[in-house]
Amino acid sequence: LVSVLSSAIIVYRLPWTWKCSKLLMKFIHAGLNTIAMILAIVSMVAVFDFHNARNIPNMYSLHSWIGLAAVIFYSLQLVLGFAVFLLPFAPVPLRAALMPIHVYSGLTIFATVIATALMGITEKLIFSLQNPAYSASPPEATFVNCLGLLLVIFGALVLWMASRPHWKRPPEVNAEALRPLGETPEGTEAESTMTDGSNTDKSHLGISTEAARKQNLKLDEAGQRSTM
Amino acid sequence: LVSVLSSAIIVYRLPWTWKCSKLLMKFIHAGLNTIAMILAIVSMVAVFDFHNARNIPNMYSLHSWIGLAAVIFYSLQLVLGFAVFLLPFAPVPLRAALMPIHVYSGLTIFATVIATALMGITEKLIFSLQNPAYSASPPEATFVNCLGLLLVIFGALVLWMASRPHWKRPPEVNAEALRPLGETPEGTEAESTMTDGSNTDKSHLGISTEAARKQNLKLDEAGQRSTM
Repeated sequence: LVSVLSSAIIVYRLPWTWKCSKLLMKFIHAGLNTIAMILAIVSMVAVFDFHNARNIPNMYSLHSWIGLAAVIFYSLQLVLGFAVFLLPFAPVPLRAALMPIHVYSGLTIFATVIATALMGITEKLIFSLQNPAYSASPPEATFVNCLGLLLVIFGALVLWMASRPHWKRPPEVNAEALRPLGETPEGTEAESTMTDGSNTDKSHLGISTEAARKQNLKLDEAGQRSTM
Repeated sequence: LVSVLSSAIIVYRLPWTWKCSKLLMKFIHAGLNTIAMILAIVSMVAVFDFHNARNIPNMYSLHSWIGLAAVIFYSLQLVLGFAVFLLPFAPVPLRAALMPIHVYSGLTIFATVIATALMGITEKLIFSLQNPAYSASPPEATFVNCLGLLLVIFGALVLWMASRPHWKRPPEVNAEALRPLGETPEGTEAESTMTDGSNTDKSHLGISTEAARKQNLKLDEAGQRSTM
């Protein structure tokens, strides 16, 4: 689940994706997130079945509360992302307004899922290791602790990749066909941004493209270039 | 600890700080982080004393491993931040190169500390609630679960505040005195940025300040405006 989630997050940052169209990338992003959602639902059903079979109460732990909250927000994120960014009905200003929220909530849900996994690992180690107990540090405890530590490192790496402005997808050269009416070609350069990022090559434009640059900067500020 | 940490993080985003100098803000940021570090050390000493008094082994849980890792990275962050950003010896390109790493690792350590707290809460509830057990959902369990949920919401809010580009500190008007040689006044506008952020008012500058703007954009790209 965590690996599918992180693939969905970093799909916009991978060099090979620079070669495929923005639309295909959006489909890969949405598809991976749908797979992650299905995995989340399957694992939740498995947990409830396991609890019921062993007469363990459901939804009592902090792990379960935060995990359920993460799944609820994740499904909201999925439905909203599908309706706004994948279906062609949402107007550009709405996409522009929602993109920073979509990026922020995606990364926050990802971090929350990792925290939930760490709590789940802690619970499982305490409940399962009885003789010798968790506190006696048997090899299983050390091994699973290492896995937990690797999970934190992995999550930190994904967040690093997702938040680097220079790892954004470079501007598309063949964006002409997708260009909406009333915008200059520079305004349609499709980049996925963590923030309202700045255009790295704007200082190389000459005076003659002053108007285009201003347009570009304004789009930057509105975050619109993220949403096409 | 978490509240002092978050104050240190968002100090650059608070409106009242817009009225005091960049240097004073850096001192507040460093001071709050030093207080948080002292609190972390005191609480770690308390935990080791508690464990030793009750003959509980130390450092066996995932909570303790990740917590110790966070404290180690936090002290590194503090020492490095002090040496590079507070002492006047580090050259501007070094500050520029390290600022995005400093911001990223600060926020990642903050998220890790929250995850560690959640694991600690989970452990404590399992160990302390015996009759009725945690799984019977006594009022204490529900209460502490709510506290854990609030901790997640609080952490998410702090990360939201810290990552909004328009909540950056506005450019300083009286930065002349701090201006290093060989830079235009625009280049010294001191902003703290989450990323290599864009200057929100650069599109309003006229053609006459073209050279200054180019300088400004170049500084933007290098992230240098974050470091003065």
